[in-house]
Amino acid sequence: MDKVVANAREAVADVPDGATLLLGGFGVVQSWPTTLIQALCEHGARDLTLVCNTPGVGPTSPQVLAEAGLVRKLIASYAMYPKQQTPMAAGIRSGSIELELVPQGTLIERVRAGGAGLAAFYTPTGVGTEAARDREEREFDGRRYVLETALRGDFALIRAARADRLGNLVYRRGSRNFNPAMATAARVTVAEVDEVVEVGGLDPEAVVTPGVFVDRVVACEKVLDYAAIRELSRWWGRQYDLEVRERTDGPTGIPPDLMVRRVARLLRRGEYVNLGLGLPTLLSNALDPEQDITLHSENGMLGFGPLAEDSSADVHCYNASGQLVRQYPGASYFDSTSAFAMARSGRVTTVVLGGFQVSQDGDLANWNVPATGIGGIGGAMDLAAGQARIVVVMFHVTRDGTPKLVERCTYPLTAARCVRTIVTDLAVIDVDAEGFLLREVAPGIGVEDIRRMTAARLRVASDVREMEFA
Amino acid sequence: MDKVVANAREAVADVPDGATLLLGGFGVVQSWPTTLIQALCEHGARDLTLVCNTPGVGPTSPQVLAEAGLVRKLIASYAMYPKQQTPMAAGIRSGSIELELVPQGTLIERVRAGGAGLAAFYTPTGVGTEAARDREEREFDGRRYVLETALRGDFALIRAARADRLGNLVYRRGSRNFNPAMATAARVTVAEVDEVVEVGGLDPEAVVTPGVFVDRVVACEKVLDYAAIRELSRWWGRQYDLEVRERTDGPTGIPPDLMVRRVARLLRRGEYVNLGLGLPTLLSNALDPEQDITLHSENGMLGFGPLAEDSSADVHCYNASGQLVRQYPGASYFDSTSAFAMARSGRVTTVVLGGFQVSQDGDLANWNVPATGIGGIGGAMDLAAGQARIVVVMFHVTRDGTPKLVERCTYPLTAARCVRTIVTDLAVIDVDAEGFLLREVAPGIGVEDIRRMTAARLRVASDVREMEFA
Repeated sequence: MDKVVANAREAVADVPDGATLLLGGFGVVQSWPTTLIQALCEHGARDLTLVCNTPGVGPTSPQVLAEAGLVRKLIASYAMYPKQQTPMAAGIRSGSIELELVPQGTLIERVRAGGAGLAAFYTPTGVGTEAARDREEREFDGRRYVLETALRGDFALIRAARADRLGNLVYRRGSRNFNPAMATAARVTVAEVDEVVEVGGLDPEAVVTPGVFVDRVVACEKVLDYAAIRELSRWWGRQYDLEVRERTDGPTGIPPDLMVRRVARLLRRGEYVNLGLGLPTLLSNALDPEQDITLHSENGMLGFGPLAEDSSADVHCYNASGQLVRQYPGASYFDSTSAFAMARSGRVTTVVLGGFQVSQDGDLANWNVPATGIGGIGGAMDLAAGQARIVVVMFHVTRDGTPKLVERCTYPLTAARCVRTIVTDLAVIDVDAEGFLLREVAPGIGVEDIRRMTAARLRVASDVREMEFA
Repeated sequence: MDKVVANAREAVADVPDGATLLLGGFGVVQSWPTTLIQALCEHGARDLTLVCNTPGVGPTSPQVLAEAGLVRKLIASYAMYPKQQTPMAAGIRSGSIELELVPQGTLIERVRAGGAGLAAFYTPTGVGTEAARDREEREFDGRRYVLETALRGDFALIRAARADRLGNLVYRRGSRNFNPAMATAARVTVAEVDEVVEVGGLDPEAVVTPGVFVDRVVACEKVLDYAAIRELSRWWGRQYDLEVRERTDGPTGIPPDLMVRRVARLLRRGEYVNLGLGLPTLLSNALDPEQDITLHSENGMLGFGPLAEDSSADVHCYNASGQLVRQYPGASYFDSTSAFAMARSGRVTTVVLGGFQVSQDGDLANWNVPATGIGGIGGAMDLAAGQARIVVVMFHVTRDGTPKLVERCTYPLTAARCVRTIVTDLAVIDVDAEGFLLREVAPGIGVEDIRRMTAARLRVASDVREMEFA
């Protein structure tokens, strides 16, 4: 048995028009099966349905399939990037590409169900949101769940670090992400790998994807562009500094690094904590190792430390926002299916998310600003489904001064009645059964400033005080 | 953070009366969390519900909890062992212990769902059998599925090879089995390990159970009794020789080793094949390595070879029947959840099962002889659900001469309309749309012998011939 094929072109030669393709990779760094994707472009099969976390950005990503006009439908958790024009976004806007947006954890769990021979499952993710529209809903033990059906593909194109000739695969650190589940759920699974080793060259106890799931193995023809990945990581890290510099109106609140330092003080010793896209990722840099906080990431990692911006950073060690991070001793890697199992089952105890709006009932909207087009659900709905403590860290108002703490959210919800505490550049506010309760104000900010910039009733704690950061 | 507790007694001290316990281990060898189970006996919590693959046999197994009168309910895939009197079996027969028998793959998938925060799922396993009684049934894409609900426990007691102080775990070979899923699905997970290492002492990419799922770690106080495990392995291996020697009536067919050699010739090059309990396990010894057959086992192994009966055999390298086996180069280990995903999704292409009865419609009954009490479902229903080719290898008639090929099964079904080929000591018979078709007869056996010993209409192939074995 030798599953190694001569080249990528041969590996995808029988992909027919109209095929459904499962694509591994997480999206924000270059962990795509790029050799296979480019071979597929040359092959030219049309009317493809792509299933992937996101279509990414740039010439190493699935975007090239949209650019070549081969895509009919995209099933993803994140489709459009703010400030980035992509062929996929253009196709979606023009109507030539149909989009099915699915919460990240639901998406990979649907693929996992397909690969496990199951037909459907009931998940708490997305209940009461647009993601549950047209879904059957049902109560189990007094809690609401939605029915999600299994997803399978005709072909899975995935990327791994090493394969043996029997198709056994191992991955490198955070690059496991969607690949192992995708590998299980296709009629034909093709793995692009950095290295092919002889049979016996992999530790049988460390194999992540057993060869039974893999039909073809192809040696990667494009090495990763490490410099580009590091640049992208830094670009993400700078977005929120830029946002601060752009602000001119209103009282001057505390900067993002102090906001996350205040969030850090909300965490209990020994907690497992997930950090959402954007501002929350800065918390990586604000934690004191003595706090024994273990950070969790949806691409499949526990136990990472500060953002790693220097040239020695491992490009396979990244958080769910695509920023390179340091690995701490005692870290572990797994796939996104397991990452979301940890979240939904409540083992992740605090989730720190960014927000567009929070209502006085604790509803959170953080994935879609309707006026700017189709947003990205990402993993937030799944993280909120685990009944962890949800802390939102966000600016108190938008760039144009519109309050983000509101009576009722006007943007599509991420989850209903989930937010417990909000840390902004101006205040710390709890959400309890009666609504917003102001606990702390930023230095130099008055209670009346907060009230004016909050579009809902604001109670003030009897012991309201100034924020502290250490 | 240091999850290591002083001893097993402390680790289970807060298990309350009426608790539900998830117990790792596969059951046939001594892979139990024995130290924890014995501490639980001393602790004395009553009215326990145990969730485990099987309660096993002997003083290292969960049987000691039944012996101490602490068990109210057992949820398992296999409860009674033929020829073995156990405290659990006695309690079930007397009515003091309630039994819920669940197909093995469904059982571990229910636990996995509990650990993933899901409420329920639709599986094809058990459709049309007693296992689906009282279950909701529903069609997806023209196929029938049953609804199974998630299982969670108050405590999970599991066994692993090594832990670090953060609770990260690795297992040894086939001993992974039910442990990783059990670890995810309890309020408190306690791991008994052979060795505790310092933080940083485990390869982050080889961690199987990340520490987020583990609350307490205890060093094992009882080393495995290697000699007893090897003896048990040999005992299993001898059962079918004994059965042959006990037979006295009727024509003398071929012995088991030739039966499995004939089965071996049915396999296509490169297939992934699962071997059921009993006779089928002898096939391990009958395969030519040139055939490139990869054997699959429900406890989580691909790529094993012949039965290993000598004293050098690794006690952690066993098939689903508890027989020690050799590991081939290119093997891989995983947990039972993944093992059944492979089976249900059709990646395991041929399943060789033993049988009590096969009907002319291809129905298979192989788990329960009602007159002998409650049988064990094991993994057969799940293996049959993957639409693999099902080959049954069994004696043509029972010890007392009763035909096992019948018009309709009178024993409870394992799966309906699933059997494609039957290899007996007397014949090779295909099952097609019109019923039984005799293809081959054993040396010295006449077509009329077969007809007389078959309790259904038997068509004879125009090219019927004598069996060949090489």
